[in-house]
Amino acid sequence: MRIDVLSIFPDMFAPLTQSMIGKALEKDLLQFQVTDFRQYSHDKHHHVDDTPYGGGAGMLLKPEPIFEAMDAINATHPGDKRVILLDPAGKTFNQGEAKKLAKEDHLVFICGHYEGYDERIRSLVTDEYSLGDFVLTGGELPAMVMIDAIARLLPGVLGNAESAPTDSFENNLLEYPEYTRPASYRGMDVPFVLQNGDHQKIADWRLKEALRRTLLRRPDLLEHVELDTTGKRLLREVRGEEAGRALDDKLSDE
Amino acid sequence: MRIDVLSIFPDMFAPLTQSMIGKALEKDLLQFQVTDFRQYSHDKHHHVDDTPYGGGAGMLLKPEPIFEAMDAINATHPGDKRVILLDPAGKTFNQGEAKKLAKEDHLVFICGHYEGYDERIRSLVTDEYSLGDFVLTGGELPAMVMIDAIARLLPGVLGNAESAPTDSFENNLLEYPEYTRPASYRGMDVPFVLQNGDHQKIADWRLKEALRRTLLRRPDLLEHVELDTTGKRLLREVRGEEAGRALDDKLSDE
Repeated sequence: MRIDVLSIFPDMFAPLTQSMIGKALEKDLLQFQVTDFRQYSHDKHHHVDDTPYGGGAGMLLKPEPIFEAMDAINATHPGDKRVILLDPAGKTFNQGEAKKLAKEDHLVFICGHYEGYDERIRSLVTDEYSLGDFVLTGGELPAMVMIDAIARLLPGVLGNAESAPTDSFENNLLEYPEYTRPASYRGMDVPFVLQNGDHQKIADWRLKEALRRTLLRRPDLLEHVELDTTGKRLLREVRGEEAGRALDDKLSDE
Repeated sequence: MRIDVLSIFPDMFAPLTQSMIGKALEKDLLQFQVTDFRQYSHDKHHHVDDTPYGGGAGMLLKPEPIFEAMDAINATHPGDKRVILLDPAGKTFNQGEAKKLAKEDHLVFICGHYEGYDERIRSLVTDEYSLGDFVLTGGELPAMVMIDAIARLLPGVLGNAESAPTDSFENNLLEYPEYTRPASYRGMDVPFVLQNGDHQKIADWRLKEALRRTLLRRPDLLEHVELDTTGKRLLREVRGEEAGRALDDKLSDE
C-alpha cells in the first residue's frame, strides 16, 4: 500500500513512525509520503489561504496548491486511488471502514483546516470521513488516527503476539478484564480463577466478564453478537447478577 | 489548566505544539507535561509490561509504573483532577464532553496500549473515553485528538478570526460551502450570490446550504436545530428541491 498525505504541517506526522506505521515501513509493507502543499503556492509569500467570498471570519484553503499537489501525485502514481478528506460532515470512521481501506492500493489524505477550505477541493475527493462529533484544529491528527488504524491491518504488520482478531469490536464484545503480576497490589487482588490454570473456567470467566462489560457499557453491541449455548447461559447469568445488584443499590439508598 | 500525560512514547506528543496547544502554551493558558512512566519501572530492563494471568496473547501494562507516576503527579499537584483513560469501552468523546473537560483545572491522560493493561489501573481513573469504534496501536493519538479539541476551547486560545462558536456542531448544523479566489478555477465557479455583496441574500444562501448538507448527510442533527421563520421556510424549500432531485434521478434511471 501507498499512503500520501497533503498537509501544511508535515512535521506533525513524525510520531507515526513510532506507532504501527513504523513497523509497516520497516517491513516494506507501506510507502508513506507527506507533501507540504505550500510548495505549490505561487505567490511570493507562499500563502495557501485567502478570505471567503461573501464575507465572514476565518481564512479558507485556496484550491490551486491542493489541486497541483494532487496533479503531482497522479503524475508519479497514476493508478486508482482513494482521496480522503477529513471533515466533520464526512461519514463516521469505524473498524469496518478501516478494513475496507486497508485493502486499497493507494490512499491520499487531504488535511484541511476546519476553519474551512474552498468547496471546489471536494471535487478531488472520493471519500469524506469524520472521527466523531468534535471540532479539531486541523485534519492532521484525525488523519494520523485513521492511518494508524489502517496500517495495523495490513497483512504482516502485526506480529502473532498482538494479532488483530481478538481486539475490541472484532466480535462485537468489549474486552474482558486482564491482569498481570503482582497477584496482589495495593490491596487489589487478581481474581482467583485466573490464577488456578483451569482453561475452561478461565475461558468462561472471560466470556462472562466481556458480556458483563458490554451489557453495562455498550448494550447496543449485544444485538450483533453471536453466542453459543454457553454464551447464552452466561449472558442470562450476567443479566440476573446485574439486575440483583441494581436492586440492592436501590434498597440500600432507601 | 494543567494537562499531564502518562505515556511510554513521550516524543509522540511533540506535534501538539504545532497545533492549538502551542498557542495555549505560548499564551500561558496551559501547563502541559508528558511523563514517561517507564522511569517508574524498577526492574533492570525497565519493563512496563508482563504476560497476562490466565494465558493469552499480548503483553499487559503492569500496574506499578502507572500508579507511581500518578503518585508523583499527586504529590506535586494535589488538587482535584480528572484522570482519563482512552479505552474502546469508554464513553464516546464529543464536543459536549470537550466543553465540560475544558472547564476542569487539571486533566491527566493515561495512554494505555490497546493490547491491554492490568485492570487495577482503572481504579485510578475517573473517566474513560473512546474516540469511536476502531482499534488503534495505543492511547497516544486519541489523547492528542482530545487534547487538541479541549485546548482550543480554553478562553483566550482562539483569536477572533477563528472564533469557536461558528464551528460545526455548535449549532447542530453542518457548515455551508465556502469559496475563496479565484472566482473560476478549472471550470468550477464560485456561486454568483456570494460574489454580489447582498448580505441578506448571502446569509439566506448560507443557511439554506447548511440545512441542505445537514439534511443529506446528518439528518439526525436536524432534530436538535432551532430555526426561526426564515429557517423553517428554507428547510421546506430544501426538502422540496431534494425530493424533486431524487425523483429526477429515479426517472432518468428508468
